[in-house]
Amino acid sequence: MDLVQKALNNDRLAIAKLLTLAESQDAGFLHASSILFQHSGKGFRIGITGAPGTGKSTLTAKLALAFRALDKTVAIIAVDPSSPFSGGALLGDRIRMRELSGDKGIFIRSMASRGALGGIARTTADAAMVFDAAGFDIILIETVGAGQSEVEIAALVHTVLVVESPGLGDEIQAIKAGILEIADILVINKADLPGVLRTENALMSAFHTSKKHAFRHHSDVETTGSHAPVKEDEGWQVPILRTIALSNEGLIPVREAILSHQTYLLENGYWSEKEKQRLRFEFEEHLRELFFQHWQQMHSEAEQADLMRQLYERKISPQHLALKQVESE
Amino acid sequence: MDLVQKALNNDRLAIAKLLTLAESQDAGFLHASSILFQHSGKGFRIGITGAPGTGKSTLTAKLALAFRALDKTVAIIAVDPSSPFSGGALLGDRIRMRELSGDKGIFIRSMASRGALGGIARTTADAAMVFDAAGFDIILIETVGAGQSEVEIAALVHTVLVVESPGLGDEIQAIKAGILEIADILVINKADLPGVLRTENALMSAFHTSKKHAFRHHSDVETTGSHAPVKEDEGWQVPILRTIALSNEGLIPVREAILSHQTYLLENGYWSEKEKQRLRFEFEEHLRELFFQHWQQMHSEAEQADLMRQLYERKISPQHLALKQVESE
Repeated sequence: MDLVQKALNNDRLAIAKLLTLAESQDAGFLHASSILFQHSGKGFRIGITGAPGTGKSTLTAKLALAFRALDKTVAIIAVDPSSPFSGGALLGDRIRMRELSGDKGIFIRSMASRGALGGIARTTADAAMVFDAAGFDIILIETVGAGQSEVEIAALVHTVLVVESPGLGDEIQAIKAGILEIADILVINKADLPGVLRTENALMSAFHTSKKHAFRHHSDVETTGSHAPVKEDEGWQVPILRTIALSNEGLIPVREAILSHQTYLLENGYWSEKEKQRLRFEFEEHLRELFFQHWQQMHSEAEQADLMRQLYERKISPQHLALKQVESE
Repeated sequence: MDLVQKALNNDRLAIAKLLTLAESQDAGFLHASSILFQHSGKGFRIGITGAPGTGKSTLTAKLALAFRALDKTVAIIAVDPSSPFSGGALLGDRIRMRELSGDKGIFIRSMASRGALGGIARTTADAAMVFDAAGFDIILIETVGAGQSEVEIAALVHTVLVVESPGLGDEIQAIKAGILEIADILVINKADLPGVLRTENALMSAFHTSKKHAFRHHSDVETTGSHAPVKEDEGWQVPILRTIALSNEGLIPVREAILSHQTYLLENGYWSEKEKQRLRFEFEEHLRELFFQHWQQMHSEAEQADLMRQLYERKISPQHLALKQVESE
């Protein structure tokens, strides 16, 4: 596999081609994946999630630069149609992203999420594997944190950053209801906006309510906000950090918190635990899809149309029709 | 099936029990579904989607009341961890939701989205079928509009409302990038907030850019904003409507726009087209899951552990391991 060998040597064109194969779940990628997989497992995967409006794309870009300052290579996977990485944002944002271009140590790829029903996690995982095998030290995966996708991102990465911003009112509730559970690091971006203290307090109180923990100061990292609730079950203290990504404020503490979390995972055996969880998750995602594709290949258009007709005429429910198919395999 | 018969007669306890079976994808539900399915197909399914902070839960509640004023029965399915329907919101919101309680013509159910990897669309569809079979006229499905979930909601409903609110900056971009494509009706809620005109203009210009259409006035419904971009491919003019749901402003025009869309779907043959698409989507979701469950049942814990070990030791990639499983069926 010339293409794979080139990608393993960090050839950007080869990487780009493999990413396209991954995104389209091309049969050629399946072949490439066996070699890529053997060379993967070293990259540090970091999920960055948060609602639109929190400035998480800017934060992602600035964090990439902060890691570059440590001479680490950085890949960015944007799984968010609103991300400037995907061309979905305003011109100003796209221009800011240019800070990243021209640097051979940075590779940015946006993944189409639209139309890829059930397939986003799979294609994202495959893209991460390409970057991992190509030797990128840091793989940042930016995703909208809402509903299902945040559960999936937690399954795909080592460290989850949840990005919040002041003044979005109800948004705190979103965090309260679920996103907190997957956060390893909480970032309040746009910390120059009014209401930052209220947001910080709301986050702490939400955390407090859900975890029933006392708050302690977090000593490992310098926090601009000085509070750090304890994630008792794992022993990791989730820091709450303030940033103003647009003007480069507070980014080093976030970078250091991420690296502290990596050390924590490695020292306590959680790193390999997370790797195992992720690989099983990836396997199961592929399994569902391949069984489905196999079923499609085994049934002609005419056969499928006939089955659908039974469905449309309400002779059989979707559940039962599916069950019959599985049982007749 | 006593339980099913009771639910068909709108027995609330029976409905609640079936919803629980649907949510847990209990084997008992598979049995119930064949009868429920035969009695479904009449309910009008409406998706309400938008980012946290747009006030879509309040809008959903008020819309339910607006439909009640027409003596229509309303079911609400909240697929959003931040929704007050799910208990995820602030106390004030939950109290507002009490306006809905005590009315036999309203049934509210929140679906757990956390942990239900890949299963939200399936359980939501099944819950909608229960309500449909039980005779609810209107089924409102509230979901966070971000990433994958908005594609799925579009597959599950007849009409999609996208809720926006002024002043969330980047959020417009989210809409620009994708949500617009699935919108049948656009609502700018919290229209008393500063920036409403800017949001309206941004929505129109986003629509204009993506669709390259001229704007025409929409004559069927009274719009508080007076603009309505044309969705040329289907002939439906997507109205952009302003509401202040909290103080009951602008809700009747939204309700009427929804009913106009229903008429439009029915008169142009799109209603049954959407039903067919939905049933195929539901079938495929069940198919993927059942194949996966079948595989799990066919392999003992020990066998699975052995396969996982090959994965963890990087002897085989997740893709190939999945392919081997499918090929050996």
